[in-house]
Amino acid sequence: MPEYQLYCFAQSGNAYRAALMLNLIGADWKPIFVDFFKGGETRTPHYRAEINEMGEVPVLAHGGRMLSQSGVILTYLAKRSGKFKPQGEDEELEALRWIIFDNQKVNGFLGPFRFLKNFVRPAGDPTVLAFLKGRIDGNLAILDKRLGKAPFVLGDRPTIADISFCGYLYYPAEEFGFDIAAEHKNIGSWLNRMKALPGWAHPYDLMPGHPLKL
Amino acid sequence: MPEYQLYCFAQSGNAYRAALMLNLIGADWKPIFVDFFKGGETRTPHYRAEINEMGEVPVLAHGGRMLSQSGVILTYLAKRSGKFKPQGEDEELEALRWIIFDNQKVNGFLGPFRFLKNFVRPAGDPTVLAFLKGRIDGNLAILDKRLGKAPFVLGDRPTIADISFCGYLYYPAEEFGFDIAAEHKNIGSWLNRMKALPGWAHPYDLMPGHPLKL
Repeated sequence: MPEYQLYCFAQSGNAYRAALMLNLIGADWKPIFVDFFKGGETRTPHYRAEINEMGEVPVLAHGGRMLSQSGVILTYLAKRSGKFKPQGEDEELEALRWIIFDNQKVNGFLGPFRFLKNFVRPAGDPTVLAFLKGRIDGNLAILDKRLGKAPFVLGDRPTIADISFCGYLYYPAEEFGFDIAAEHKNIGSWLNRMKALPGWAHPYDLMPGHPLKL
Repeated sequence: MPEYQLYCFAQSGNAYRAALMLNLIGADWKPIFVDFFKGGETRTPHYRAEINEMGEVPVLAHGGRMLSQSGVILTYLAKRSGKFKPQGEDEELEALRWIIFDNQKVNGFLGPFRFLKNFVRPAGDPTVLAFLKGRIDGNLAILDKRLGKAPFVLGDRPTIADISFCGYLYYPAEEFGFDIAAEHKNIGSWLNRMKALPGWAHPYDLMPGHPLKL
């Protein structure tokens, strides 16, 4: 049995952060498919009791631990592997700062936006989509400005803060109706740098459940 | 000059987390008022360049450091003071898990909901408010269930995870149009336990800028 098991599905950018990290550090891991859409698996009493009371992916199973929240999983894997690890207290706090910002304000809004646009019939209300898009634009601009100053979020080398931001950013532009990499040039260049790292793979190649038909 | 300075304003539940922590640990601190509403201070080039590129409160100034994101500030102050500190790696990861969940899904939605309901004229679109409310209800239920199992988020004693969740939860029910403590009994009891801690104070007594007239 592989050392790490990751509860995930291809359409979750939150899970992608953890899957990408596992692949980038060369971990011995396998995905466990969670049937979020058709089976409503994250809402079942079993999942809430045994896998994750928050009813979410990703969950990382490792040595008896069940870890959830991608920010936690990234922190844990960086410590275990020594890779993509912030060095020292100041860098650790700075990485955490950007990870929380990402979870709340960048991928934290991109996820619901993409869900409401693609996976609800009828699609989400345009007013709600416009509200989310307004937040997304402003927050992507903050990340773009940051990435104009250095090649990676914390400076010269990639850390778990970069991996967190990858969340939904490699999913096809047509799933959003706007092209993040084209509209935010520094983010576009940074996405290419991340893509060049050994072990990088697209979410649809890394996690089960694609293509999805509703 | 006090040891700690906190950039904040009374209407920010995000800043309240940091202000409450400073008060609970008995720190020597003072608030620095940020004129978010009338002056748009967090959007000024000066604020973005010198205080916080994310354009947010809270920001904690301490010994030459400028720390932003309440989750970072709580982590930093717990380490400095030894108070409300998760003990050992497993507790640290568990606290981080709930802090990220709170930032994205509980207070992360309550803040925008309260903002759109009270501080925008005309008030936010009802469809957007209903979207946010749906998310808020589901996520508060997860916290409520957790707090039915133990007196505090991580177990028998309060930690920074509890302080994070306080965010917007002591603001008056009429500002939301629903009563969180009454609708979620375990959260209600837990809010009373937190309120009983020495040093607890209401956001409107702890930070400048209240009452607000639009």
